[in-house]
Amino acid sequence: MRMKVCRRAHFNAAHRLYRKDWSDEQNVAIFGKCSNPNYHGHNYELIVGVTGEVDPETGFVIDLKKLKDYIKSEIEEAFDHKNLNEEVVEFKELNPTAENIAIVIWKKLRKKIDTTYDIEVTLYETPRNFVVYNGE
Amino acid sequence: MRMKVCRRAHFNAAHRLYRKDWSDEQNVAIFGKCSNPNYHGHNYELIVGVTGEVDPETGFVIDLKKLKDYIKSEIEEAFDHKNLNEEVVEFKELNPTAENIAIVIWKKLRKKIDTTYDIEVTLYETPRNFVVYNGE
Amino acid sequence: MRMKVCRRAHFNAAHRLYRKDWSDEQNVAIFGKCSNPNYHGHNYELIVGVTGEVDPETGFVIDLKKLKDYIKSEIEEAFDHKNLNEEVVEFKELNPTAENIAIVIWKKLRKKIDTTYDIEVTLYETPRNFVVYNGE
Amino acid sequence: MRMKVCRRAHFNAAHRLYRKDWSDEQNVAIFGKCSNPNYHGHNYELIVGVTGEVDPETGFVIDLKKLKDYIKSEIEEAFDHKNLNEEVVEFKELNPTAENIAIVIWKKLRKKIDTTYDIEVTLYETPRNFVVYNGE
Amino acid sequence: MRMKVCRRAHFNAAHRLYRKDWSDEQNVAIFGKCSNPNYHGHNYELIVGVTGEVDPETGFVIDLKKLKDYIKSEIEEAFDHKNLNEEVVEFKELNPTAENIAIVIWKKLRKKIDTTYDIEVTLYETPRNFVVYNGE
Amino acid sequence: MRMKVCRRAHFNAAHRLYRKDWSDEQNVAIFGKCSNPNYHGHNYELIVGVTGEVDPETGFVIDLKKLKDYIKSEIEEAFDHKNLNEEVVEFKELNPTAENIAIVIWKKLRKKIDTTYDIEVTLYETPRNFVVYNGE
Repeated sequence: MRMKVCRRAHFNAAHRLYRKDWSDEQNVAIFGKCSNPNYHGHNYELIVGVTGEVDPETGFVIDLKKLKDYIKSEIEEAFDHKNLNEEVVEFKELNPTAENIAIVIWKKLRKKIDTTYDIEVTLYETPRNFVVYNGE
Repeated sequence: MRMKVCRRAHFNAAHRLYRKDWSDEQNVAIFGKCSNPNYHGHNYELIVGVTGEVDPETGFVIDLKKLKDYIKSEIEEAFDHKNLNEEVVEFKELNPTAENIAIVIWKKLRKKIDTTYDIEVTLYETPRNFVVYNGE
Repeated sequence: MRMKVCRRAHFNAAHRLYRKDWSDEQNVAIFGKCSNPNYHGHNYELIVGVTGEVDPETGFVIDLKKLKDYIKSEIEEAFDHKNLNEEVVEFKELNPTAENIAIVIWKKLRKKIDTTYDIEVTLYETPRNFVVYNGE
Repeated sequence: MRMKVCRRAHFNAAHRLYRKDWSDEQNVAIFGKCSNPNYHGHNYELIVGVTGEVDPETGFVIDLKKLKDYIKSEIEEAFDHKNLNEEVVEFKELNPTAENIAIVIWKKLRKKIDTTYDIEVTLYETPRNFVVYNGE
Repeated sequence: MRMKVCRRAHFNAAHRLYRKDWSDEQNVAIFGKCSNPNYHGHNYELIVGVTGEVDPETGFVIDLKKLKDYIKSEIEEAFDHKNLNEEVVEFKELNPTAENIAIVIWKKLRKKIDTTYDIEVTLYETPRNFVVYNGE
Repeated sequence: MRMKVCRRAHFNAAHRLYRKDWSDEQNVAIFGKCSNPNYHGHNYELIVGVTGEVDPETGFVIDLKKLKDYIKSEIEEAFDHKNLNEEVVEFKELNPTAENIAIVIWKKLRKKIDTTYDIEVTLYETPRNFVVYNGE
């Protein structure tokens, strides 16, 4: 029996949407007020879903304590109370849109979680905007 | 990389579940108090999910401002503070169940959004009842 | 020891904001799209707070089953799936604004609940608009 | 047109994670404080999704009143205010993890709901941990 | 300037409502299914509000890290994943109703937090039932 | 009859907690990771409560459209997608703690709303931390 187990986490961060190789005008045209050079920020709410077989002995798909630990070490400690553009190495050259943040989170967790499991990352940038990425 | 981007919106409307070609008894038997001839209403909460490739240049699946504008012009302005049965043309002959409203929303957005994108409509009639439609 | 005990409930209804003794122009000027003659509607979320002494024998401020029953008989059965203007006697001559609905709910519960208790009614017309009335 | 219709419900229960055939040390090693012999408990929030064709006559995928009744009789009355390990027969020999509870719920509803429908069970053990099972 | 600062926390626990000095019939008559001898349980959601002057130097009413630590040591570690009746000394002879749990939480925090501050405890037993206690 | 009417709004912003006249060590000691010189950010959720008499003619305490407009012009346009420390004049010399932001919001709205009304500002910095200020 195969099932998805989900764990919610969160981090607060500043970011700015822009491309270094674009002019200010181009950045404003595409990213609007999200390209504010002084940054703005969000309370990111994260749901990590892990799909796998239910272990008939424990009744667990995955040890949630381990999943919590991976989320804590890989995501929360790396992103929380940070400026994503300036302080998180993955975004030095990558625009920190919700889409790209979700991909980075997915890739970081993918390295930690056995490949017999599928991973799905749901990232709320605000309660009104969110993205879902499953490695497709 | 393919991903779903979601945007939440809302509208308030009155409706009544019934078929004009049925007797009152039949309408009450099937639709219960939802067939009240004087109408009742809901705060509909809508989540529109759009799935597509992440543009490597912008880091966006879709320009959310455009998605917001489509939702505003096609759905919110058409449905908000309306009587769905009496004032929304799509429901003149179509019973405004949550299912049918979701299909109408999906079709209206389908005309506006490039077909390289998949569209999923989640419609909460109440916090306890909702439907999900993806054009299947 | 005095404490507030709260119970959440909900009902769905249609309504229209308007005064019979005003012209259509005046109604639209003041109530905007809420005065739509064909009605619109809401999922009203209700929180009833009852403040009183904790009974040292039971550890209860009030028997929640009784409070639930009062809310059910007085409010939910009277308002749910109704057209407030047309079908609820209290609003025959009273504009069903969130404020007035909260006052009506408060008065109906006040008759049922012993006056040693204070009553507070919180009524969400939408997740974004709500009122709080305590009989002041 | 095929669509998912969802209904939210809830029940409160006590449980303990452990295997009778394991030592206390083994149970604590794997299940941690969740194996407390005196039990702990949760407000389980349940979302049942039923996927099927929209009936062109009614505009319903399924009669929600029937779905509510099945959830009430099969799940709420069986689990609410119960000790899952001691009082719910399905868990006499089955560890009541969120995963196993979701499977039991799915199987109980599967017997009631016509097999032309797909069923999906989402079970929140807490607002931060949840599982999704669709019978795979 | 005086202001309320609030912090949300949570714990999961089993409990049973009953009085040892009452017969089973009396317990069932008053506490219904909440008096189940095998216990049931809840995800308690707790909001602690602390009201005091804003320190003009820091802009803080209270150091939230300290408040979090008090809640963790006094409440979460004492109550989480416990059987309140059997394992929490304050409820050995006190019925663990939401009201009494809120009073116990208030008293425990009152000993830790300077009396220049007012304390308010909001305790959700379920998303639908909650109590508010401020030491009155 | 006197009643509180509440309106929810939101804005996203970057900020940093620190005092210019303190050393970095002092700032870190008191404000921890919130003093990150590169900023972090939040989705601030705001509830503005306005308490006044219900106008017997309209059934309104206040015209919500006006309240929405004040919140939009005074708060959302001034704070949304901004760096509070760098771009909002009120925080040039004032540490943008949740407490201070709530006071600034209260003062800005106080100038717009007739003094026959009481104003209460609830500001969520995160879903877990919030403050309530009423001008005391």
